[in-house]
Amino acid sequence: MKPENDLILRAARGEKTERVPVWLMRQAGRILPEYRAIRNKLSSFNELVETPELAAEVTLQPVDILGVDAAIIFSDILVVPEAMGVGYKMVKGKGPVFHSTVTTQAEADKLRIADPGSELKYVTDAIRIVKKELNGRVPLIGFAGAPWTIFAYMAEGSGSKTFSAARKILYQNPALAQDVLNKVTETTISYLKAQIEAGADLVQVFDSWAGILPEQQYKQFALPAIERICEAIDEVPVTVFAKGAYGAFDALANLPCRTLGVDWNMNIQDCRKAAGNKTLQGNLDPCLLYAPDEDLVAGTQKMVSAFGKDKYIANLGHGVYPDTDPQKVKLFIETIKTL
Amino acid sequence: MKPENDLILRAARGEKTERVPVWLMRQAGRILPEYRAIRNKLSSFNELVETPELAAEVTLQPVDILGVDAAIIFSDILVVPEAMGVGYKMVKGKGPVFHSTVTTQAEADKLRIADPGSELKYVTDAIRIVKKELNGRVPLIGFAGAPWTIFAYMAEGSGSKTFSAARKILYQNPALAQDVLNKVTETTISYLKAQIEAGADLVQVFDSWAGILPEQQYKQFALPAIERICEAIDEVPVTVFAKGAYGAFDALANLPCRTLGVDWNMNIQDCRKAAGNKTLQGNLDPCLLYAPDEDLVAGTQKMVSAFGKDKYIANLGHGVYPDTDPQKVKLFIETIKTL
Repeated sequence: MKPENDLILRAARGEKTERVPVWLMRQAGRILPEYRAIRNKLSSFNELVETPELAAEVTLQPVDILGVDAAIIFSDILVVPEAMGVGYKMVKGKGPVFHSTVTTQAEADKLRIADPGSELKYVTDAIRIVKKELNGRVPLIGFAGAPWTIFAYMAEGSGSKTFSAARKILYQNPALAQDVLNKVTETTISYLKAQIEAGADLVQVFDSWAGILPEQQYKQFALPAIERICEAIDEVPVTVFAKGAYGAFDALANLPCRTLGVDWNMNIQDCRKAAGNKTLQGNLDPCLLYAPDEDLVAGTQKMVSAFGKDKYIANLGHGVYPDTDPQKVKLFIETIKTL
Repeated sequence: MKPENDLILRAARGEKTERVPVWLMRQAGRILPEYRAIRNKLSSFNELVETPELAAEVTLQPVDILGVDAAIIFSDILVVPEAMGVGYKMVKGKGPVFHSTVTTQAEADKLRIADPGSELKYVTDAIRIVKKELNGRVPLIGFAGAPWTIFAYMAEGSGSKTFSAARKILYQNPALAQDVLNKVTETTISYLKAQIEAGADLVQVFDSWAGILPEQQYKQFALPAIERICEAIDEVPVTVFAKGAYGAFDALANLPCRTLGVDWNMNIQDCRKAAGNKTLQGNLDPCLLYAPDEDLVAGTQKMVSAFGKDKYIANLGHGVYPDTDPQKVKLFIETIKTL
């Protein structure tokens, strides 16, 4: 069923749209008091992610409250390593902490190629509920982490400023890294296909730690895995967001995907030039949402002028920060809608 | 007194050198067992930084043990905010934690323009000891954080992945940010002059969090402060290392400094083209020091070929990681020396 508001899908396919579509990375969760009311009743972040009714509820909140042009399923990129056998919990003020890591061949051998129909059923169940509740109002975005980013967390066992434990493996045991990347890639493809089967109208691949790799290693390890995913997904448009991949943007432009994400430090003109016929998505500095209204409006207008209104999906250049005032987010969205 | 080995000074001045000089960011401290033996006897990192005899001892270790072409004074960029009234302590596994933050005008008004002759005397005392012990063998590098990076820590009160508290101020209260940046700049200039007066033969300005700012804000807030520092220091060559400042590299190339640092994700050819007549320093991926010997040697050779042997100081593209094997560091240094 074609959504009533299919602006994002048309922009992703490179078609003309009567106005620029807009959504926010991390819109589901974090900033809304309505989200926190639900989250605070639970004992853990994981419980929210793994309870389809609640994940669906917080997925729908920004559609109703903020007026975005798409919903994105509330989940986390780390559900994939968990489904493969490497679980984690979210620790306040610290981020994800894994119960075990993958740094040896024995640990890699123990990884399962997850079956999304069983191990990730809570995500597809949530998608089905969201689709029913949305009732065709706006498209639903599914997502997964890119294999390099997932591998980085699996090797490190937590977030990191340097991800040196993961990067060490690329130098010391590239075959092990490749083995894990292959397993993650395979799981990710079937996971995204399951999301699409359940109703996702578009999927985004997040390579959050793209920027930590030297260009050559990004092209050797990270990019081929994303390429395999893009090649495998032909049911819906695919967006690839490789944060900080300045040196590899030209190569990203050759991926068989429809849309490329642009972070707030990337030069819009350079990205437009490199991206050719692709749609671009981004890239407002999330901190501009702290600015006075007139600066936020002016910055938003400037961004759209730089991208141009065609082949463009407005968004931030990073996930929205948790202490952002929802009124500012509404102003950002309204500004885009009235341009 | 001219050091016996003045390769780095000549390379920084753009003069021909018979071979490429080499040192490592963070060489003083972290990787050597000899360093840890001293550190482990003390109750805190700060105690080591503030005890001139011990700071001098760990400064000299890499000269004797690793054979680098320069010493760099063992200290921390956060001694400047401490001297200005915003103290910190290093917490294991967490990094610096400040006793207070600077986010309001009242807090900014309380900041002192520090007098390095008193509040930072422990650094200049350490420099004097090092110079005596070095006895002219190799040059000594002094350093300070760039004002934006110092401001970022002062506002945030700790390390951060986003430094959104600091960046919020740039949008909400740019006058406050400018006021703090001015005070930090003034302190930094007199601090670097005091280091030079005590014997530093070259100084480096570290803008560790350059990469978090959008290009336009980097040019508005961060760069003018560095420019003032470069203009004020004419006694010795100045190196500016703005990590992650991809969009601003062209502007950095116009600074009145002699050398620019290059991080491991910057494209060497692009930097060379942008830097014109300046000397470049960097940029080995610190994780390449985890690689097998033959890969480390090949990667080092490839890096030097890309930079060229003139107007070049070999280094890593980031500080050396704490779990690096000193033997690998020696191999890196030996490889550079025999090229």
